[in-house]
Amino acid sequence: MDKLEFIIRQLAKTNKKNYENYVVTRIWNRLNDLNIKFITQQYISRPDGYALTDMYFPQIGFHIEVDEPHHKKQIIDDKIREKDIITATNHEIERIDISKGIEDIHLQIENIIITIKEKIKQLGDEFVPWDLEKEYNPETYIKKGYIHLKDNVAFVKSVDACNCFGCNYKGFQRGGTKHPIEKNTDIWFPKLYPNGKWDNQISSDGKVITEKNIHPEKVAEHIKKHINSEIHTRIVFARVKGPLGGKDVMYRFKGVFELDIEETQKSNYLVWNKISDKAKTYEPISKIK
Amino acid sequence: MDKLEFIIRQLAKTNKKNYENYVVTRIWNRLNDLNIKFITQQYISRPDGYALTDMYFPQIGFHIEVDEPHHKKQIIDDKIREKDIITATNHEIERIDISKGIEDIHLQIENIIITIKEKIKQLGDEFVPWDLEKEYNPETYIKKGYIHLKDNVAFVKSVDACNCFGCNYKGFQRGGTKHPIEKNTDIWFPKLYPNGKWDNQISSDGKVITEKNIHPEKVAEHIKKHINSEIHTRIVFARVKGPLGGKDVMYRFKGVFELDIEETQKSNYLVWNKISDKAKTYEPISKIK
Repeated sequence: MDKLEFIIRQLAKTNKKNYENYVVTRIWNRLNDLNIKFITQQYISRPDGYALTDMYFPQIGFHIEVDEPHHKKQIIDDKIREKDIITATNHEIERIDISKGIEDIHLQIENIIITIKEKIKQLGDEFVPWDLEKEYNPETYIKKGYIHLKDNVAFVKSVDACNCFGCNYKGFQRGGTKHPIEKNTDIWFPKLYPNGKWDNQISSDGKVITEKNIHPEKVAEHIKKHINSEIHTRIVFARVKGPLGGKDVMYRFKGVFELDIEETQKSNYLVWNKISDKAKTYEPISKIK
Repeated sequence: MDKLEFIIRQLAKTNKKNYENYVVTRIWNRLNDLNIKFITQQYISRPDGYALTDMYFPQIGFHIEVDEPHHKKQIIDDKIREKDIITATNHEIERIDISKGIEDIHLQIENIIITIKEKIKQLGDEFVPWDLEKEYNPETYIKKGYIHLKDNVAFVKSVDACNCFGCNYKGFQRGGTKHPIEKNTDIWFPKLYPNGKWDNQISSDGKVITEKNIHPEKVAEHIKKHINSEIHTRIVFARVKGPLGGKDVMYRFKGVFELDIEETQKSNYLVWNKISDKAKTYEPISKIK
């Protein structure tokens, strides 16, 4: 996929909402900078629950909401947990009021453009120009030394997540793998919603994951197995529906979690608590040797 | 309707064609001038038949075609004669090739913007800034002294066409009216395609209109009535489906036509030949007195 297709697919998501589409498209065209990435209709997780923003600029943690009259946004969605939900802590949301005519909308948009450019300027060298290839390349994160929740990292393929931690896989299709360097740690790619034989959940603040076998007769065994295992730490990349719609899938970094043995013993499911927003990255083992 | 709604409805017409929508929207936003009007998916009549252009700038007679790969344009449409077809004589068409990536598309668009601005500059004082109200106001054409085919004039209401020629109607719903000033002339609002009891046609060069009663037993009577009438001249505004889709209807000036008695006698329908591209306009009679 190239930037043109990426952008066109982003914009197409807003096709049915004419005013939203007009504003989002105009912001993109007036901004006129291929180094700036945006996502339309981004699900965000906030302390007070989930929300959906109309245009999201991940490089600067900035969102735009188009206030359409007579169109209350559908924020609660049964399938929301399957979506790509990002952590929007410290993100800023600007609203565009479309009720006062075209000149006023255009003026608001020009002001938004100034705000965005100002934010990029403030970042200075920390601003990472949009590069579709680099973004999904493990090398980018290995060089950086870590993956952090606030960078809202997601991979298109789970193999790329594995390869951030010392793996040197060509392909990878499983639900998880052992961390090749850090002892007692797994890299895990769960669906964090009820699926197949698992009933998994993540709290809306992203701090607690629960994992449960849906077959009552297997619950005790599953819990016992994990408590007795040496591996009580997991680097979590949730498998989510990506922003491009259709079959688009992404693996979104959710943090490092640790099995809460006490809580697990009290419950009939595994309880994983987030212990870090940051996971250290490693060169592939073959390169280290 | 205001400009915002007009533009949004224009853009919405291209929603299903993502690349076309991207290009058209970007041209509009990069042009960034509310004095410039555009129409998407405009039917045009050319010496070699009908065609459909993606973006049309009526003030400068300029069209843009987006060359989408794998998307051959549907130029022939059974219902084309119901559409608003404009005369594109001496119009210019520029093509945008979208096959070479986003940077290349953006560059082509910037060049188109320069071309459009240059054309407006060349028009000088003759450039009429887009004014939705003035455009449909008879006063505009009365001041000008005439309505000309090359200006591609259309009215939203037939009453406004009547009032360009000395009428002072408040409302008007009929298929035609007597010209209050020019003797033996009607102002006519036909559907120039088979409809109800009429089988009307206009030639693709816009020079000949044929008018026929579909009931064979009434044909002779209809022909005789018109040949014997004193009124052999018609100022024609064709009733067409407007560019906004849905129930949008417009009355498009097609020229001044004269009954061709000889051809009519040879045929089993009325034959009207265009005798002028221009119709003189008049102040309302009450104002003249």
